[in-house]
Amino acid sequence: MKETGLIKKDEIDTPALLIDLDAFEYNIKLMADFMKDKSAKLRPHYKSYKCPTISHKQINAGAKGITCAKLEEAETLIFAGIRDVLIANEIPNPAKLYRLAGLAHAHPETKITVAADNAENITALSQAASRFGVTLYVLVEVDVGMGRCGVNTPDEVYALSKRIKDSKGLVFEGIQAYEGHLSYDLDIPTSLTEEVKREGVKKMCEKVGAIKDYLEKKGITVNEISGGGTGTYNITGNNTIWTEIQAGSYALMDSVYDRAGLRFKCAMTILTTVMHKRPGMAVTDAGLKVCTIEQGFPAIKGYPHLEIYQELSEEHGPIEDPKDELEYLQKIEYIPSHGCTTVNLHDQFYCVRNNTVEAIWPITARGRSR
Amino acid sequence: MKETGLIKKDEIDTPALLIDLDAFEYNIKLMADFMKDKSAKLRPHYKSYKCPTISHKQINAGAKGITCAKLEEAETLIFAGIRDVLIANEIPNPAKLYRLAGLAHAHPETKITVAADNAENITALSQAASRFGVTLYVLVEVDVGMGRCGVNTPDEVYALSKRIKDSKGLVFEGIQAYEGHLSYDLDIPTSLTEEVKREGVKKMCEKVGAIKDYLEKKGITVNEISGGGTGTYNITGNNTIWTEIQAGSYALMDSVYDRAGLRFKCAMTILTTVMHKRPGMAVTDAGLKVCTIEQGFPAIKGYPHLEIYQELSEEHGPIEDPKDELEYLQKIEYIPSHGCTTVNLHDQFYCVRNNTVEAIWPITARGRSR
Repeated sequence: MKETGLIKKDEIDTPALLIDLDAFEYNIKLMADFMKDKSAKLRPHYKSYKCPTISHKQINAGAKGITCAKLEEAETLIFAGIRDVLIANEIPNPAKLYRLAGLAHAHPETKITVAADNAENITALSQAASRFGVTLYVLVEVDVGMGRCGVNTPDEVYALSKRIKDSKGLVFEGIQAYEGHLSYDLDIPTSLTEEVKREGVKKMCEKVGAIKDYLEKKGITVNEISGGGTGTYNITGNNTIWTEIQAGSYALMDSVYDRAGLRFKCAMTILTTVMHKRPGMAVTDAGLKVCTIEQGFPAIKGYPHLEIYQELSEEHGPIEDPKDELEYLQKIEYIPSHGCTTVNLHDQFYCVRNNTVEAIWPITARGRSR
Repeated sequence: MKETGLIKKDEIDTPALLIDLDAFEYNIKLMADFMKDKSAKLRPHYKSYKCPTISHKQINAGAKGITCAKLEEAETLIFAGIRDVLIANEIPNPAKLYRLAGLAHAHPETKITVAADNAENITALSQAASRFGVTLYVLVEVDVGMGRCGVNTPDEVYALSKRIKDSKGLVFEGIQAYEGHLSYDLDIPTSLTEEVKREGVKKMCEKVGAIKDYLEKKGITVNEISGGGTGTYNITGNNTIWTEIQAGSYALMDSVYDRAGLRFKCAMTILTTVMHKRPGMAVTDAGLKVCTIEQGFPAIKGYPHLEIYQELSEEHGPIEDPKDELEYLQKIEYIPSHGCTTVNLHDQFYCVRNNTVEAIWPITARGRSR
């Protein structure tokens, strides 16, 4: 007999983004247990799931605070009661820095940290902080191989950290250094072996370690060194100088991280309906508008031998089905190849356990890219 | 002197999705002028822009109604006052068919048409329509080369159309046949010459024409044959049997359609700020979370020789800048490679003319994929 009010998984309208709560809780605990005796603390990255409910669960399990990439993400975290937020990225536009400082002013209970890699930006940050009479904590970003933002030499980092120290409203907190290039390699997935990763992290530690020594010799204390992703959490999280690990994807995972042999479970799937079936082919109602493919096509849960045929359309998923295993109106699940961007297409998670819906969590920061 | 209240384009916070109103209005007029003396009528596809304000402008310029792909898109159109809506796609889930029929019941002023390619689905459609005492118009989908949904033989189409005719609450309206495979070819862009397209449309017309003749010999009238995209509007829109052209991308365009040599202008761009500059490289604040890349990297407006370097990150756009033409904090614009999916990442369009913001239009159907 059906319990009153219970929504079964197969009653959820499709396409829908699901969280398998058992797998999710397993992942949260596995990471919390790993980090328990490490000198680094966990500060999970919000960009991978954009849902403050998940952030609270990470903090309840021991995370020190949350990392995010954008001011608008930070706003959703702070509005949801998170009290220690790192924007691990530069905020270039001066107008937006006033919005940041205004946020700090309205939330004196919250510690807000932001990255910088440029003297002009630090001046603008200080002006904004001074205008609102607030304190903003600043990490200088060091490029450890992404080739994106950040500076490189000890002298550059020293000049910026000194400038931060001397700027009204700012506190120099340490170094932002994220090794995303060591997380996975899409082109040659097997090339990023544990050994290659360890070697990469070692080089990164030498570079950042030398910078830290240089600054401290010059009298500038480096409180935090923040970085580390899901692909390297166990290496970067286990070295002696990193103080924060920003892994985010571990909570929900995706098929690319799964292929990298991590111990976390794929907790996020896209529920979809077979809307057309003919011999050799099934077509689902889930396409590019609910599932990104820049890291490859999604996997089909429970059918590892089935694949998307040629291309995902905007609203259709054609699946080659040579043995006609799938049926018209059957509900199946995609495991997305890139969780971070797929989450950004959806407004809510349907949280499922034992085939019933236990909760619906809002993806509050969906589309918050400013 | 700045006029009071005027927001200049470079004051828009980034990243932001822009419409160049002059280019947009040019595109709307160019298509309307082309369609004026054709036997087919324009029914533009909403999936490409998801903004009812644009739909109203297309209807004001002569479009007969709007095409969309999903029930949730149709809802946003009907709630915004559009009175002739085609869902050019099957709605598989029986529960959602009741939502469709309920929508028709609440909006008796609106003609709603939906596609079907399956007897079971037609039975469920009729049950839902009967339950609400409404009339739903139905097109049978014919596969003209997409290899996705739809049926193929005259007998299959006849069986389904007869079933629709005999079903309570349903009216057989004609055939849905979309030739998206002739719009553009990403792998070999030059392979889809005008001649190849014309040959493809000719074959499609022969297939659908034979089906139409077959049905009419059997006493079933085919009122509408609906299809045609931005890449083939001038061919499909100029044949003798198609009655509706569903082109949607023409209004805003993207870099892939632009390379195909169409006469429409690229009216949609992503405004972004250079957040990091070093010799040879600029990094913008616009990445995968605001710009899709399944059809390639975006072009840089005004800098056709500059390109995204290696990969777009989630929130960063690295641009190789060998002559250091770009400056820190400069605002530049991406022309997305795939407008339809990029629109689906954003909540609003900033509509700009003469470098000032004239309007902000909501992307109401962003994320409406059910």
